[in-house]
Amino acid sequence: MIPLDGIDAILFDIGGTLVPEAPPGTAVAALEPAAFDGVPELLRALSARHRLGAVTNTSVMREGDVRALLGQMGIDEFLEVVVTSTDVGVAKPAPEPLLHALRVMQVDAPRALYVGDLATDRTAALDAGMPFVATDRSLGDALERAAHAQRGPFARYADQVTPPDTAAIAAATERQDRLTKPPGSLGQLEALGTRLAGISGVCPPPVPQPVAVAVFAADHGVVASGVTPWPQAVTTQMVANFANGGAAINVIARQVGATVHVVDVGVASDTSQFAGVRVHKVRAGTADLSRGAAMSVADARAALDVGAMVATELVDAGNRLLVTGEMGIGNTTASAALIAAFTGRAAMAVTGRGTGIDDVMLAHKQAIVADAVSRTEGFLDPISVLSEIGGLEIAALAGFIVGGAAKGVPVVVDGVITGAALLLAEALVPGVTDRVIAGHRSTEPGASVVLEHLGLSPVLDLDLRLGEGTGACLAVPIVQAAARILNEMATFDEAAVSERPAGE
Amino acid sequence: MIPLDGIDAILFDIGGTLVPEAPPGTAVAALEPAAFDGVPELLRALSARHRLGAVTNTSVMREGDVRALLGQMGIDEFLEVVVTSTDVGVAKPAPEPLLHALRVMQVDAPRALYVGDLATDRTAALDAGMPFVATDRSLGDALERAAHAQRGPFARYADQVTPPDTAAIAAATERQDRLTKPPGSLGQLEALGTRLAGISGVCPPPVPQPVAVAVFAADHGVVASGVTPWPQAVTTQMVANFANGGAAINVIARQVGATVHVVDVGVASDTSQFAGVRVHKVRAGTADLSRGAAMSVADARAALDVGAMVATELVDAGNRLLVTGEMGIGNTTASAALIAAFTGRAAMAVTGRGTGIDDVMLAHKQAIVADAVSRTEGFLDPISVLSEIGGLEIAALAGFIVGGAAKGVPVVVDGVITGAALLLAEALVPGVTDRVIAGHRSTEPGASVVLEHLGLSPVLDLDLRLGEGTGACLAVPIVQAAARILNEMATFDEAAVSERPAGE
Repeated sequence: MIPLDGIDAILFDIGGTLVPEAPPGTAVAALEPAAFDGVPELLRALSARHRLGAVTNTSVMREGDVRALLGQMGIDEFLEVVVTSTDVGVAKPAPEPLLHALRVMQVDAPRALYVGDLATDRTAALDAGMPFVATDRSLGDALERAAHAQRGPFARYADQVTPPDTAAIAAATERQDRLTKPPGSLGQLEALGTRLAGISGVCPPPVPQPVAVAVFAADHGVVASGVTPWPQAVTTQMVANFANGGAAINVIARQVGATVHVVDVGVASDTSQFAGVRVHKVRAGTADLSRGAAMSVADARAALDVGAMVATELVDAGNRLLVTGEMGIGNTTASAALIAAFTGRAAMAVTGRGTGIDDVMLAHKQAIVADAVSRTEGFLDPISVLSEIGGLEIAALAGFIVGGAAKGVPVVVDGVITGAALLLAEALVPGVTDRVIAGHRSTEPGASVVLEHLGLSPVLDLDLRLGEGTGACLAVPIVQAAARILNEMATFDEAAVSERPAGE
Repeated sequence: MIPLDGIDAILFDIGGTLVPEAPPGTAVAALEPAAFDGVPELLRALSARHRLGAVTNTSVMREGDVRALLGQMGIDEFLEVVVTSTDVGVAKPAPEPLLHALRVMQVDAPRALYVGDLATDRTAALDAGMPFVATDRSLGDALERAAHAQRGPFARYADQVTPPDTAAIAAATERQDRLTKPPGSLGQLEALGTRLAGISGVCPPPVPQPVAVAVFAADHGVVASGVTPWPQAVTTQMVANFANGGAAINVIARQVGATVHVVDVGVASDTSQFAGVRVHKVRAGTADLSRGAAMSVADARAALDVGAMVATELVDAGNRLLVTGEMGIGNTTASAALIAAFTGRAAMAVTGRGTGIDDVMLAHKQAIVADAVSRTEGFLDPISVLSEIGGLEIAALAGFIVGGAAKGVPVVVDGVITGAALLLAEALVPGVTDRVIAGHRSTEPGASVVLEHLGLSPVLDLDLRLGEGTGACLAVPIVQAAARILNEMATFDEAAVSERPAGE
């Protein structure tokens, strides 16, 4: 049990959180006195370090009735207070029951955590000024996430992501019109330069170089269910290819002057013999998402941390532009499921042929995606969605994006896999997308859904569907040119070029 | 009078060529005995170096009738033979009348030139195996073109343009599928690499570098008619800006490692004081195309020669990728007219706002374009269209494209101006487009018309409308990456990566 630093008290919702939810209005006598598996043990362990209480919406019971029931389950003894909506006359999402419990316990809201299973629970907690964690998958997971949220590189860097600099954006917008060209005639290159000014916080923005491409590699248990014709061994073989400099991303990185950094965050086999590969293996591939959760919340958190660490290490080493890349046989399946889960689009609309599959396999893949997405319905926490679907490299990429954003360095995203990672990053750190540049539009249908959902306009549209970071890396010289324009082009005044007459 | 080298005999069509066309079936007595201005003097001059004859379609006259009429105009004496369709029983486009005249004169077809004004004249000449020149604008122009066609860099390099190498294309297509990636997953990058193999004639194609951008600058008389709010002086001011390295094309060229070569092919004012500018001024800007021909055929030919020379000089200096650029206030008007003339599209559909004009000025510009295009209707020779419309930098760009193509070096075209130049080049040297790469899609409507007409897929689509070669130059790293992929990526065999099972 990881301690929850900075948390004095933990308040629990009851129905759906500690015990199965009973239909509204169930008679007291009809309630089953049974908690979820492991709850008594969990509360006992927590009670050693934290003060505990319960806050629940019920129209038929008061504190005494609830305590009597909880007593039969062996958990009443751990709860210092039990507040019902009947006690205070108002139900959640109003924050009153929570605030009442905090007053009784004499604990400040920021030092108390509320644990619940519904959006109304979260609303009440946020209105009360309390941190909240959702029991999307299990109470243990929720507390694990809460513990991790207070530690680890990802959480630390997430707090450092700020909105782009509006003064730099305004200065760049104004400067674009003073350069020796008709206003707006450099089209998206002007928008890109202005975006870079906002990200870097200065105008003109520095030309973003050196450039580092991080290729996160991991395996996916779902390949056992037949979603791709490629054998899982190809993930490892391609890691070797990256290490030897023979893959597409190596070639394109050499073209644009970028370095390639290969990170094993979850490859099924050993990659430590390949030169230069950074082995930060969280686990040897995910479980099969078609049969259950792809990984634990702790694994998901650890993979996010790997990505955030790699990003910040690369920036600390001097890199000023980060490019997202990935390799993982089966990862278009997990990406499609994440995209459907985070955008609400149907599995059919976001699931493509990946590296190339026939109609029968595509239908099978879509069914697997639809099933996985349906299991995450109602989840309140993006980490829960991530751990249910996977994958490890997608989590790492989300961490990488957040790490780069925290460091004030633009991050160029690639295709459908890194798009799914960006959706995840945006769900975890709202606004982080404003510090990202979409490198290209992949032909995978989910990629366009991501771009549309996040309002991104990609630099390139070359019908690529390879991944590895190839499309993002190809966009690098154009991103750099956008910054260079603001730095090096002469203004009308400097060049003594006539502006067109006012009013035209 | 420039002599026509290698030509022993010149045969003339009569109606529409030497004398105004009479309606079919006009009675002999009703024919006006008047030649076009200058024709007697021209025939006299030509007769000093060449044997002359006439071949005409007429259903009412025989040789004697025609000679009697020509005698009244003072030109019968120069004509060794006069053949009418009535004489030989068949009219053009059948080649019989021409072949009959050649037999009488005992001259081989390749050493005799036919001069006419109709498509049927051209068909007859080509079927007879004779060179042909059209009197699109005047007889003098036609002979000037014919003389130039046998000399000058443009004509010489035009003869050297060959179709892309099919064996290299086949080898590249096959190699793309052996590289360590799903087949086709690099999308347009694969098509681009295969195209480069065809252009260079080897597989893998060399990575095309060093890169030279040629910026051809010239002025347009049509600015006097109010088609742009920018003063004409901006052309010269921008040439100075290019020389100082402060324009957008300089900045982007530095980004992609290209050198910029500025060529004054027709700027209105003196540019010789600007460092590094190559002054090959054919004339100080075109005449106003809204009031008549923009330039003479000789000027148009000279500008084509400038472009061809610059291209071949840059290749001889070691450059292996040529990029087209331009500057010329007013040149979107000439480009729109050329695009309409060569594609048959309406002026409305191809005329845009250029560097930014309002609705009233746009309507005025469209009317000017429509009028200029109408004046070229029925022209058989692209040079005639070019000299009617202009401009000097557009002609030079067409020469540049042909020069690069002749040297086996890929040429990247930019926006609407260079697109118009490419249409001109394709009209002059059919098939030259296969040695060209479209760098980007400009927002100018004519640019998309050109791409569609020539079946080109642009590398970039960034809403640019600046010109100078900016869009083409931005595409350079992607073009180079396409070649590099074929050179440097490992094959499945080399990298020991599993291919997906056959039949999948």
